Amino acid sequence: MTDPASDVPDSQTWKLTLSYDGTDFHGWQLQPGMRTVQGEVRKALGRVTGETPLPQGSGRTDAGVHALAQVASFALRARIPAENLHRALNRKLPGSIRILEAKTMPAGFHARRSAVAKTYEYRIFLIKRECKDICPPFLARYVTACSWPLDLTALNQAALHFVGEHDFCSLAASDPDGATRAGPVEDEGDAASTVRRVFSSAWQEEKSALGPLLVYRVRGNGFLHHMVRNLVGTMIEVGRGALMAAEIPGILAARSRSAAGPTSAARGLFLHSVEYEEKDR
Amino acid sequence: MTDPASDVPDSQTWKLTLSYDGTDFHGWQLQPGMRTVQGEVRKALGRVTGETPLPQGSGRTDAGVHALAQVASFALRARIPAENLHRALNRKLPGSIRILEAKTMPAGFHARRSAVAKTYEYRIFLIKRECKDICPPFLARYVTACSWPLDLTALNQAALHFVGEHDFCSLAASDPDGATRAGPVEDEGDAASTVRRVFSSAWQEEKSALGPLLVYRVRGNGFLHHMVRNLVGTMIEVGRGALMAAEIPGILAARSRSAAGPTSAARGLFLHSVEYEEKDR
Repeated sequence: MTDPASDVPDSQTWKLTLSYDGTDFHGWQLQPGMRTVQGEVRKALGRVTGETPLPQGSGRTDAGVHALAQVASFALRARIPAENLHRALNRKLPGSIRILEAKTMPAGFHARRSAVAKTYEYRIFLIKRECKDICPPFLARYVTACSWPLDLTALNQAALHFVGEHDFCSLAASDPDGATRAGPVEDEGDAASTVRRVFSSAWQEEKSALGPLLVYRVRGNGFLHHMVRNLVGTMIEVGRGALMAAEIPGILAARSRSAAGPTSAARGLFLHSVEYEEKDR
Repeated sequence: MTDPASDVPDSQTWKLTLSYDGTDFHGWQLQPGMRTVQGEVRKALGRVTGETPLPQGSGRTDAGVHALAQVASFALRARIPAENLHRALNRKLPGSIRILEAKTMPAGFHARRSAVAKTYEYRIFLIKRECKDICPPFLARYVTACSWPLDLTALNQAALHFVGEHDFCSLAASDPDGATRAGPVEDEGDAASTVRRVFSSAWQEEKSALGPLLVYRVRGNGFLHHMVRNLVGTMIEVGRGALMAAEIPGILAARSRSAAGPTSAARGLFLHSVEYEEKDR
């Protein structure tokens, strides 16, 4: 990975905050012949500035994963007022990707390396008996529908076991594609280690216009590839009574993907926010 | 149009209530080589029952138009419990189309001809200055974004002029495609007439998790092709001060499409509900 600011002389470092509906994209990362968020943002930058730096995301999101506030950084030689770049990019981008903020940063800022914490959110729609097994079509892209009851107390007992510094090897993608593409780590923070610190991890019930959702929020210093989806898949096993919360420490200790539950669907996952030190906000 | 019940011996008439996200469909109506809602429902019926009746909708919805509760009728020879048909169809249909109810009806029921009233809803997202010109990507498929202020009082003054029985010729699609495809009338109730009765017509501000919406609801005994979108396009002209509400009667009297405002985007439009007499519910 190149530092976007250091290898372009006379350039300015930019920070973009952006939101996207990931359904129609093959994830964040540029891939030849595929429609990706990184590719769309780069194309829009090219049309606006004539320069095509590759925006570096705070992390990759997989196909179908959404972002409420992803952060990306890149360097531009063109001098352009932030407000103008912001508006011009939104005019060029599809409605499924929206720039929330564009600003210049001190040299050295990097969306991924400068991040101090990230928060992900996972949304589950509980299909109640009286709803006769339907998830509203207007929610289908943004939730995982669950047709069995989930015990919120058990989900939170499970969630608490992930707080703190742990080796999350059992919760990292073990698929060859994941490993080849991204290494074991989604955030690449330390490719050799599968230890991450989770600051908070909790479920709550939230009302939406289309029915009640169970929402999981997890904040940590970094996340391995598929880690949040594997955490959720494992906690669902606890929530439906197929696994005990007390078995979670053993799953972590096993350091084996097969010890944990299945990977939950991408469509329920949102990158909620990325945090930086004061100087990088 | 054939009566779905009368031409199939020993058949039962069915009523389906269904909701769909219209974004990825070329409208309701079956078209060769196109993905349409009617086509998907027919295909699912075929996979479940081996019969492929063409479900008759209460009206056609255009490409990109959504339905909270569309109604369709058809005849089946197979005897199948309603609950089973309901669940089986939802298993075969994509998540963007959901059956809300399936029930057998007295012979003679017809989703369009038996309807006594229909309600449409149109959703506008107001882009506020502080939101820097963005409509959240998770709303983009379901609203029209409006970046100028709209005066709610003026919108409602305009909306009131449409209540009652009027010749809505000025608000009907005049495009050759619309005329060829559907005749001038969306609901085909009386192909020779452009007179319709509007029972209620009003705007209100509603909160959503992603920001405030302006929502227009119109209930009437039938709607011409593009009528709701043309009503909205005309009222937006009033809401932004380009037209006076008092000019609406003159627009109706002109009986000319060019007298009215533009056609608003399909994506903000929802078929809200279809009403039937007690015996047909």
